[in-house]
Parts: sequence; C-alpha cells; structure tokens
Amino acid sequence: MSGNTFGTLFRLTTFGESHGRGMGGVVDGCPAGVELDEAVIQKELDRRKPGQGPAATARKEPDRVELLSGTFEGRTTGTPIGFIIYNTDQRSRDYSAIKDVFRPGHADYTYEAKYGVRDYRGGGRSSGRETVSRVAGGAIAQEFLRTRGIIVAAFTRELGGIEADAADIQGAQSREFFAPEDGVVERWLERVAEVKKGGDTLGGIVEVRATGLPPTLGEPVFDKLDARLAYALMGVGAVKGVEIGSGFGAARSLGSENNDPITAKGFVSNNAGGILGGISSGQPLIVRTAIKPIPSISKEQQTIDRNGTEQTIRVGGRHDIVAIPRIVPVLKAMVCLVLADFVMLQDARKGK
Amino acid sequence: MSGNTFGTLFRLTTFGESHGRGMGGVVDGCPAGVELDEAVIQKELDRRKPGQGPAATARKEPDRVELLSGTFEGRTTGTPIGFIIYNTDQRSRDYSAIKDVFRPGHADYTYEAKYGVRDYRGGGRSSGRETVSRVAGGAIAQEFLRTRGIIVAAFTRELGGIEADAADIQGAQSREFFAPEDGVVERWLERVAEVKKGGDTLGGIVEVRATGLPPTLGEPVFDKLDARLAYALMGVGAVKGVEIGSGFGAARSLGSENNDPITAKGFVSNNAGGILGGISSGQPLIVRTAIKPIPSISKEQQTIDRNGTEQTIRVGGRHDIVAIPRIVPVLKAMVCLVLADFVMLQDARKGK
Amino acid sequence: MSGNTFGTLFRLTTFGESHGRGMGGVVDGCPAGVELDEAVIQKELDRRKPGQGPAATARKEPDRVELLSGTFEGRTTGTPIGFIIYNTDQRSRDYSAIKDVFRPGHADYTYEAKYGVRDYRGGGRSSGRETVSRVAGGAIAQEFLRTRGIIVAAFTRELGGIEADAADIQGAQSREFFAPEDGVVERWLERVAEVKKGGDTLGGIVEVRATGLPPTLGEPVFDKLDARLAYALMGVGAVKGVEIGSGFGAARSLGSENNDPITAKGFVSNNAGGILGGISSGQPLIVRTAIKPIPSISKEQQTIDRNGTEQTIRVGGRHDIVAIPRIVPVLKAMVCLVLADFVMLQDARKGK
Amino acid sequence: MSGNTFGTLFRLTTFGESHGRGMGGVVDGCPAGVELDEAVIQKELDRRKPGQGPAATARKEPDRVELLSGTFEGRTTGTPIGFIIYNTDQRSRDYSAIKDVFRPGHADYTYEAKYGVRDYRGGGRSSGRETVSRVAGGAIAQEFLRTRGIIVAAFTRELGGIEADAADIQGAQSREFFAPEDGVVERWLERVAEVKKGGDTLGGIVEVRATGLPPTLGEPVFDKLDARLAYALMGVGAVKGVEIGSGFGAARSLGSENNDPITAKGFVSNNAGGILGGISSGQPLIVRTAIKPIPSISKEQQTIDRNGTEQTIRVGGRHDIVAIPRIVPVLKAMVCLVLADFVMLQDARKGK
Repeated sequence: MSGNTFGTLFRLTTFGESHGRGMGGVVDGCPAGVELDEAVIQKELDRRKPGQGPAATARKEPDRVELLSGTFEGRTTGTPIGFIIYNTDQRSRDYSAIKDVFRPGHADYTYEAKYGVRDYRGGGRSSGRETVSRVAGGAIAQEFLRTRGIIVAAFTRELGGIEADAADIQGAQSREFFAPEDGVVERWLERVAEVKKGGDTLGGIVEVRATGLPPTLGEPVFDKLDARLAYALMGVGAVKGVEIGSGFGAARSLGSENNDPITAKGFVSNNAGGILGGISSGQPLIVRTAIKPIPSISKEQQTIDRNGTEQTIRVGGRHDIVAIPRIVPVLKAMVCLVLADFVMLQDARKGK
Repeated sequence: MSGNTFGTLFRLTTFGESHGRGMGGVVDGCPAGVELDEAVIQKELDRRKPGQGPAATARKEPDRVELLSGTFEGRTTGTPIGFIIYNTDQRSRDYSAIKDVFRPGHADYTYEAKYGVRDYRGGGRSSGRETVSRVAGGAIAQEFLRTRGIIVAAFTRELGGIEADAADIQGAQSREFFAPEDGVVERWLERVAEVKKGGDTLGGIVEVRATGLPPTLGEPVFDKLDARLAYALMGVGAVKGVEIGSGFGAARSLGSENNDPITAKGFVSNNAGGILGGISSGQPLIVRTAIKPIPSISKEQQTIDRNGTEQTIRVGGRHDIVAIPRIVPVLKAMVCLVLADFVMLQDARKGK
Repeated sequence: MSGNTFGTLFRLTTFGESHGRGMGGVVDGCPAGVELDEAVIQKELDRRKPGQGPAATARKEPDRVELLSGTFEGRTTGTPIGFIIYNTDQRSRDYSAIKDVFRPGHADYTYEAKYGVRDYRGGGRSSGRETVSRVAGGAIAQEFLRTRGIIVAAFTRELGGIEADAADIQGAQSREFFAPEDGVVERWLERVAEVKKGGDTLGGIVEVRATGLPPTLGEPVFDKLDARLAYALMGVGAVKGVEIGSGFGAARSLGSENNDPITAKGFVSNNAGGILGGISSGQPLIVRTAIKPIPSISKEQQTIDRNGTEQTIRVGGRHDIVAIPRIVPVLKAMVCLVLADFVMLQDARKGK
Repeated sequence: MSGNTFGTLFRLTTFGESHGRGMGGVVDGCPAGVELDEAVIQKELDRRKPGQGPAATARKEPDRVELLSGTFEGRTTGTPIGFIIYNTDQRSRDYSAIKDVFRPGHADYTYEAKYGVRDYRGGGRSSGRETVSRVAGGAIAQEFLRTRGIIVAAFTRELGGIEADAADIQGAQSREFFAPEDGVVERWLERVAEVKKGGDTLGGIVEVRATGLPPTLGEPVFDKLDARLAYALMGVGAVKGVEIGSGFGAARSLGSENNDPITAKGFVSNNAGGILGGISSGQPLIVRTAIKPIPSISKEQQTIDRNGTEQTIRVGGRHDIVAIPRIVPVLKAMVCLVLADFVMLQDARKGK
C-alpha cells in the first residue's frame, strides 16, 4: 500500500498535482501484444473533459496524453507504459484566499495535518484533476479487457435526488450527463440550473456495469471481487458509498426475495450484482456509487485558518455544480483496472 | 493480492475451512511490546459465538484460540503471531444433498467454476466460519490501537427493515443483537420469529464507529482511509454495501447541507464520517454496511446441479435467520485491522 | 514487505520460535488440483532433520508436519494451506547464561536493539529452526513445479575450504553432506572432526540447480529471476554470498570467454547460469551460496552483556559444527518457492 | 512483484526504453519536508554519464532530469515524485543487423521468448540505459537518508582481475573508475586499452558501503537487510554475484576467525559486513558485487536468428569496454533505495 499504486499484476502508479507540471502515470504488467496507441487513451480522456453545459467548470484543458514507453509498432511490449498529460492551464492565479484557510468539505485540513506542507494551488494532489491519470490507466486496462470480450460501461442513475427510470447503457454514452434515458435529461438540467442559481451544488448516483466476465474472477477471502471494487471506487474523491447488486436494498429483503434462482438457462434474477462468494458469476456486474455534492459552494461558510482562527469563506470561481458527468469515466476506469487485474490473477491461478 | 492476506504493515493471513482441522492465521508486523494473551482474543471470539436466541444457529463451538508464537512473557515480540482455533464440531454429516447441487445465493457455483474442486462440507472456505480468524486478528489489532487511544465499536443500526432510533454504542455491547437502544430489541425479536416461521431469513445494517483517531490516517490517492475501509468491509461475506458518514444520503443533499463547517472548537457536524480527502479528520469515524439476508432458507428454491440439470432444494438444518449479531464483531475486527495498518503507515510517513 | 511472507502469487507466510509452541506457516496461492499430502512434505523435512554424523547437533526432533487446511481428497483446493510442526523438544533449559549476554555472530544484539524484547530461549525467532517452515513451504512449491516438469536439486560444492570435483547431483541426494562425489566425503568428515576437536566450526558452499525451466521466467527490471533468487537465498541465516553461473569468476573473465555462444542445438556453454537479462533461458539454472561457519563455538569469545559490560562466553551445548548438510534442503526449498511464483506470474503475463 | 516497482514504503517505479521517448519514474512514499530539487538529482546522473576515457561509449547524452510533481517550494510534499529524462540521442540508426539475431550474453533471446514482441532498438527495456531511472530514484532516497545521518558511497574494488589495495572511499568519488587508490588507476587504464585492442571486454568488482545506520534496519525472516540488498543489486544488469562482509571468504573461515568479538567500545572486526541476523548492527555496511564483462564484443561470435538459423555476429559500435565506472552510481543508488525503505519500515515498527 504505497498510496499511489493500484493493482497487483495490472498496476497503475500515478503522480501529479493540479497546478504542477502535469499529471502522469505508469501502467506496469499489461501483457504484451495488446493494440495500443495514444488515440485510444485520448478518446477516454475526452469523455472526462470539462463540458459546456450548465454543470460545467470553465477550465478548458486539452488534456493531451503522450505515451512515453511500453509500446512498439502499435502494440504493448510487456514493459511499463509511461504516460503524461502536461498541465496547460495552471497559470498562477491568486491563491492567497485559500492558502491559509481550510475549505469545508475539502482535504485542506487533513493534508495540512498529515504532511505538514501543502501545495494549496488548486488543491494540489487532492484535486479531482488527479483522476485524469486514472482514466488514462483505465483506458489501457480496457484495451486488454477487450481481448477477453469484457465490456465495461457507466451511466448516471440519479442526480440531485431525481432517479432515471430506464437503463439504456448504450445510449447513455452519448447523452448529456451519461443519462440512461432521454426523459430525465431535461429534469436534471433544470435541477442543476436551479441549484446553481442558489450558489449551491449537487450529488448523485453512478452505476457501472460489466459484461462478458468469466465466472472465476475474485480472490477470496480478502480480495473478493466486490471488496476490490469497493476499494477502487470508494477511493475516488466525492464517493461516499458503494453497493453491489441489490446493495442496501438487500438489507431490507427476505432471503427468498434476494436469492437468485438458477435454471438450466442461467440465473433468473441478478440481485447479487454478478458476484457470488466474492467471485464473478458470469452474470452482468452491477455496482453503484453515491457521489456527494461538490464542496466548493459560493455560499458563505464557516471555517478556520491555519492558526485556528475562525473565518468565513465563499469558494467562488470556475467550479462544477456536480461531479457528474466528469466522474462517470473515472469510475468506469477504476472498474476496468480491477477487472484487468483479476483476469491476470485468474490466469495465474489456473495452474496449467 | 494473495487473497488470504490483509494489510501492508499490520498484516493478517488466514486459513481454514468450515469442516477441516481448524481455523487459524498469522498476524505479522504487530509492533513489539504490546500486552497480549489468549484471554484478550478469546473475549472477542466469545462475542461472535453462536447464541441461544431465536436468530441463532444450533452449532455450538467452544472456539478456543491458541497462540502459537509471537509473544513472550505476556507481550508481543515483533515476530509473527500464529494462532489456531481447532474445529471441534465438524463431525462428518451427510453432505450428499449439497455435494453436487449449487445452493442459490451461496458460493457453490462460483467456487466450482473457479477452482474446479470444492470442499463442499459446510461450504468449505466460503463458509462464514472463516470470519473467526478475522475476529482473532482484529482482537490483536485492537490491543495495538489501545496503546494509541483509539477505540472501535460496532452496533446494529437496522434489522429486517426496522431501524433503531438511538445510537447508544456503549450499551449496545451488552444488548441482544448489539442493539443501540432498548426499545428496538423486542421489535427485532418479533420480526425474526415471524420470518423464521415462514422458513425465510433477514438482513440488516451494521454501523462501526471509531474514536481517538489522529487527523492523519489514510494514504491518498488509492489507499484513502475510506477506500481501505470499503475494501475491508465489502470483503466480509453477506456485505452488499458500504457507506461513509452521510453515505448514499449525501447523493441527495446540497453542498451547503453536506459540508461540515469548522469552528475554533472543531467540526460542527460529521456528514463526512470522520474522513476528508481520504484522511481521518480527527472526528469520529462512521461507516455502515448493508447485510444481505442469509441465503440458506428452508423454502424450496430452484437451482441446478453440477451437470446443469435443474433441481429444487431446501437448505434446512441449523442455520441462522440473520447474520446479525454474529457479523457485528467481524466488521469491528476489520476496522481494527485497517486502522492498525494506517497508524503504522503514518508512523513511517512522518520522516523523522 | 512484511518480513515473514515470501512471494507474490505463490506465497509462504511463516511463524514460530525455537522454543515456542511450534513452527508453522501458510501457503497461499497454490493452484487447485495439485496432489498433496503430509507424506510429501514430511519427506523433505526428514532431509533437513538433525543427523547422527560428526557435524550434527544432538537435538532430536521428529518434526512431524500436520496439514491444517487447503486440501481435499488428496489435492489442493486453491485455498490457503496451513501447516504446523509442533516443537516437542523445547523443554525449559537453563538460559541464564545467554539471557543477558550477546553471543558473537548471532542475532542477539540486533534483535535486542530492534525489538526491545527478545525471546532468548534457543535464539527465539532468529534460530535456524525457523527454516523448517521454509522446507515445508518449499515442498508444496515443489509439488506444483512437478506438474510443469521443473526439477530442483541441491548439493554441497565445498566444505571447510575443500572443494568437490564432480557434480553428481542425483547421487548427492543420498550421500552424506549431500556430497556430489564419493571421494570427497571422507575428506570432509576428517576436516569436521579436526575442527570439532578444536572447539571450532566450519562453513562451505552449496549449489542449487534447476532443470526444465521454460525460457520465460523472471520479471525485469527489478524482479529478475536472479534478483529474486539472491533475495531468497541471502535471507537464509548463515548465507553471506550468492552467485549465478560463473558468478564472481565472471568479474575476472573476458567478454569472449564469458558469453555463451548459441547454435541451432542450443547454448554451447552456461556461464550465465541459465539466466539472460533476468529471464530464464531454458538452460539449467545454477546458483551458489556461501555459508559462514556456525557462530556457536565452544572457544572462549569476547562480548558484552545488555548493560554494555564486557564478558567472555563459550557457547557450548548441542550445536552443529557446520550448517551443511541441514541447510541444503532449505536452500533448495527457497529456489522452489521462487520458481513457483515465477511460473504463476508468467501464466498471468501471457495475456491470452 | 510487478517487475518495475522497487520497495515497500519508499517505492520507485520506472519506465522507458533505450530508444523510446525517455526514461522516467515515480518515487512514492518519500516523507514530506525533505529538501529536493532537480540539481541534486542531476548531480548523481552526471556521475553515471558516459565519460571520455578509453572504457567509455561514444554515446553522449545530456540526461537532463525534469521533476514533474511531488515538490513545492523546494521540499517534498509527501505526494508521488514523478520525473523524466527525455532521450535525446535516439536517432533511428540501422538496426537490421540485430533485429532478427540474438546477441550472445544479451537479453535478446529471452525477451523474445517471454514477450513475443521485442523493441530491438538499442536493447529496448533490457538496455543498461534503464539504470538512469534507478540513479534518479536513488538520489531522492539519498536526500531522505541524509536527514537521518546515513551516508552511502561506492567504489571499484577490482577491474579486469586487478584488485585495488586500499579503500579510500572519499577519494574514490573523484578518481577515474571510482578507484579507491591512486596507484591502481594506471594499471586499470592499461588493462582496458589492451583488451579494447583485442576487441574484447572486461568485468570487475564494485563495493558499496554505508555508515550511520542505526542497529535496527532489516525485517527477518524473509526481508533481512542482506536479503533485500542482494535482491536490489543482483537485479542490476551485469551483476552475477553479491556478497556481504567476508562473503565467499566466510565459507573458508573458521567460526573463531569469522565471528566479530564485541567489546564495550563496539565490534572488534566487521566480517559480518554490518549485518547480524539480517538486521543492521550499527557497524559500516559492506557489500560487494561481481560485474560480468560487457557482452557486446567486436569479436565474431556464434549465434542464431529468430528462425533458429545459425549466424555469426560482431557487435560493433559505440560500446563500453567495461560496465565500470558507469555501474558504480547505479549500485550505490540501489543501496540508498533499500536503506530508505528500511528506515521507514523501522519507524513504523517502533509502535510508539
């Protein structure tokens, strides 16, 4: 547990601060022979980039990924894949307002306590900007998973308390907010506009699904598939909850309702979310995450500064109203990383 | 990720099957000089043992822990602490009914798919009995945490859809179901009795809290405190969801509601559940888990056997109706293991 | 790096002190379906047990291994394999002589400095007795390697400065000292007897070889096959040097002498010791270790006690004169553990 | 074991191929507050750069390191430190001669076997050029060790079979070949010139020493200080042997000669090389490595191509005659990385 490395065999190590030179990482362990180029990674990064909608930040970064190593003639070579996305928009702004004051809901206070020093510019390492490296790493994992027929996709289940009814995953990829149905988009836009007007922010629920999994992924007893998914997803900033399949609903069900009967044609239902005993069952994987509202609000808040003196703060500026949709590709990327690791582990466990 | 080892510096490795010789483990990395004997571990094991209440299994195991190494004159020596709990109740029963049939909601199907072979007796390694080693390991972690003034406790927040109103954690330790108030116990007993009569089972929600944490525990960006807690807890059998602080509720809040204001006297609220930016804030840690209903129900269920032929099955026998209260000490143990690891990591990170 | 766990995918965790309850361990990650029973492990333990020859200790322990988990109907199940060898000869002797005095060449001084407390009875965890768990773990690894056609064997190359001329590995397994030729045994026996008479001790050189390796094992750049072998072997008590193939001799060769030419029939020589660029080449693996003389001598030595006061000490008692032959199966076991891990890693790296 | 990450708490992950975009890495875990800038790293890189002497390659690379993250106002922040050294001299030469032919003594054959694909340009990842990232990482570790008063230095003990008599470590840092005395330099230069004329290459022995270690570093039983040093050093290309203190000489000594007596003033000798029972004793650490001759010789050699057809090859071009002196800073860097990791581990083990 080094903090900035994820995975056992398919490993992503990341670095970078919001206003430093750039964000980057190293994927180590990806098998040789996987088709890979910058375009494939860029495509995923583009899905995470700041939009123009009412929920979006004004920060506009091209986020151009450069591959530094690990490929040759369009394929991975089995050696570590270094990549970097240089920061192009980190012009020195005036940070005196937050340099010595702890923004509520942010990591300012705990970073100061833990490390003693703190790169306060844009939140430094604690900025959501670090997730760009997760998306790049996840894109590489996705290419490997493709060679096994495993497909991962994510969409927004709920935003500002308004739940979508359908789950059109395919369509969600091109809808605003990664919405799983057309009807809900308008309602979400209205909710965002209304909250923005009040100087406030919103949260939501994102769901990630994966299909094509063999019924073998997961390493009981501590490294069950669900355990690693929870670890991967809860580690993304703003995530406050993770549930698998029927999740918290299972806590209120009877055993006879929650068990998934099995027939010769397969499982009849999927309350398990595709995992039994910590191992993928071959059913679609279903995992949901609770996203808290963005803590940067322009309403006045009570806080303290580094000397413990009480202050009030308004965190204005170019901030998103809700982490959705930008967090959606990040969560998908984390699931890709988990699955790539487990596929390799299971290859190793086969024994012959 | 070896599957059966948990932690980086304070590590627990476990082994054992439900009907094998015994359940055991090794705690490696515990600092030298911590007071430890079998009685301290036994006390925690006794809290997990099958009870006499209406929700309990009929299996009666003394679960006597034996320390095999790592202590000298009543203190840890810094060397690995081996322990074993011999199985005393694993008399060969007739397993022909489940030997070739996959019980719905159990790991039978996935273990068969993953490993090719399967110790079907009582579920083998996938049995909840493996958690006895987690409790023993957690008890050792708890002794280490005590030397730092960190206290961990767990209680039942909800059972069968009936939520407790209060959160008397201290009192919960001696109440039936680890209930956090007197009033709810009767209602839970009634609910269990009713469901039992119908041959069905129940789930619930368990909350774990910790106090005395320094504002430094957690290793961003992948090994945040919340990420490791989610990993630890979701890996326990029957857990289908994990949330921190306001959790899924945060997804429906406004930023101005969910942020915790800070004053000179400390945080005003604790929606964060004691974690900011993946690092403990010094506030009480609050984490909740969703427990699915026990899958072993005596109602008839549809399933298949190893040949893919459809079968019906009733899983009778000496089974619990709900994983609560037995799972409560298990979840507490996992939180102890996570915290012990982070305390040691932070000692290492200090740099001087 | 937890200190008492070895390996990434095929992992051995050990515990136990010389005069505690017993020595044990857990092998986690061994693929399912490998034939395994106690007899197979016992056979390797018997090769390590104290002999009757002139170089042997008087301690006589049956060293009976008991499997605690992880097998079913004579095969591994993919779950962790716990084992224990209870100490049967740890009767409380009088340790007052070494309780407070640091024996030269032993770990007494550093264990005291590192841990603050020390189980002084027979050296505690620093005793060579811990290697019994390595041999048990290595025996399990060996069974897995057998399924891949990989054979590991060890023999004594040199003892007390007297080198063996031949390298009859097969025959060495049944000769005294694991000698690789008949002629040298008598000379070694004489050398041991002579040194024993003088109250002194001896060292030697042990060679381990492995055949049947595919040309793919090893993970550059840090986890090269030779790097992991050096790690595994240098970690065995008494080992002060490790060399691969031509080893230190290579430092005195010309490139034209040391390179191994390749023909259509394979490599012409094997100065590389079977490893190129940190990856097995398919040639036999050859690694040698330098074993220091046993530090327990009955001659008077200068030392200090825990208070820093100067003392003289004679370490009498039932001690070996040379770590050979007992260390030979230990070194072989470590090589088995390294190779089993790399076989699994390469399975994972294949990518399809 | 991911292959390209070294260390547990103080971790270096590297990437890059000889003729790719650049060589880089990430140091994760370095405590916050350590003074660090590019100049400090550059100084170490400059010690590794190709020289002008008779043993040197003609490749001239500035090897300018750029820090990408992890520092703020001249100090580390506790977040990962990314760095890159762009390749500036990787102009596409004609590699058709080695594209399909396996150079003897090189990793060509095994990389092809292991990965299926191979970046043949300059050896790709298997090139000695990867060590530039080790030196950069080691330089960061060195800055951390400085805060603890630990000093690491390396020098050449032997070259082409000619051993140096003295061990003037301080002076060695500015002498050609890192020679530990003036007198031997001339003889080494002659030996190199002579061998170069014959189209051949040489090896040697390099010694690394460290002072200022507390008597507590090392994690028995598998992660002993000597075990990790052997792991670190044997993993450097061209290293074929590692020995601690009296090393292989210990195998030919008597116990009474090899034991280091202890007096009230400390140890009388240092055959142990500063390590007892796998833990640093507080004495100077002494470790030696055997360096094989550079395999690229301009003499004709026998080999095969990818089709298994026999070929002859002369590996001409701008190659070094001996890996010394360029390998010397690399070996020092690896020891720095090992020690930084153990210092942090021991901080964690202290328990209070």
